[in-house]
Amino acid sequence: MDKKNLPNLRGEPGWIALEYPESLKDKPSFVIGDPSKDRLAVRYFIRESDKRFFGKVFFGEATQGPPGHAHGGSMAAVLDEAMGFSAWIAGHTVVAAKITVEYLQMLPVNSTVTVEAWVESVDGRKVMTKGKIYSDDDVFSTSEGLFINIPAEKFGDASHYLYKVKGQGEK
Amino acid sequence: MDKKNLPNLRGEPGWIALEYPESLKDKPSFVIGDPSKDRLAVRYFIRESDKRFFGKVFFGEATQGPPGHAHGGSMAAVLDEAMGFSAWIAGHTVVAAKITVEYLQMLPVNSTVTVEAWVESVDGRKVMTKGKIYSDDDVFSTSEGLFINIPAEKFGDASHYLYKVKGQGEK
Repeated sequence: MDKKNLPNLRGEPGWIALEYPESLKDKPSFVIGDPSKDRLAVRYFIRESDKRFFGKVFFGEATQGPPGHAHGGSMAAVLDEAMGFSAWIAGHTVVAAKITVEYLQMLPVNSTVTVEAWVESVDGRKVMTKGKIYSDDDVFSTSEGLFINIPAEKFGDASHYLYKVKGQGEK
Repeated sequence: MDKKNLPNLRGEPGWIALEYPESLKDKPSFVIGDPSKDRLAVRYFIRESDKRFFGKVFFGEATQGPPGHAHGGSMAAVLDEAMGFSAWIAGHTVVAAKITVEYLQMLPVNSTVTVEAWVESVDGRKVMTKGKIYSDDDVFSTSEGLFINIPAEKFGDASHYLYKVKGQGEK
């Protein structure tokens, strides 16, 4: 969400920014399309070396659950989205069937952290994913997600999900 | 969130509305304290006969994940909160350790549905909860949550969590 222009949502060396699809730019959505400045802001990347999915996520004041800390549901939402996108980026046109989130550390609001997600295994139509939210010092939550591969045409204009990769080096 | 005054967030016969704590009224939070009109609006109740926890939840346009449907993360956030409150209302001062959410049906945006949550069992400090989101016709998602009982004083002013029950008959 470039419009927020939060300076700390930068990638790391070797990450390539994913471009938010033009067709979704004026539509609200729960995580990546959150228009407020004090809730969730995300920016997604793939790591060039192994195509792994990463995001930088700002948890603002309005993600609050326990006083001063992010709502467990806000971390669950970010992990759900990141695991789903990691599957889409790997070529699986999926919907979520089941997610599990473990909360390891309370995450203070007004923090910028990293989300990482990846496809762990594929068994027929079942795509197993994992994810985690962490900083340099702490792991705040981990997740597993079972996603089901369904025909791309069921999504209508599935290009909504097909993130373009920006020019290399852009962060 | 009375300020939204959404007419369809009414309880059902035998439900008693829970009052939003005065001390939290001006603080944003991710689910119950969501100030926007097009995302999540919730109103919580207990059923008088058995003290079971219920909520009426409006999933607005900005809860979108898949086109036209609520983001799985928005349902996870509502279930996380409902399971936690069901434990607090039963007298357990808990934090979430692990939640699992199963997605059964896609939930169209601009829907008002019911969330129900309850304490399934207690084993020492472990409080096992369950929840579900449904309408008259469909169950959209179900959940399990492991919460851990910690001393009330660790929450600081724990009265933030102690919802008052409004006068009977108020819906």
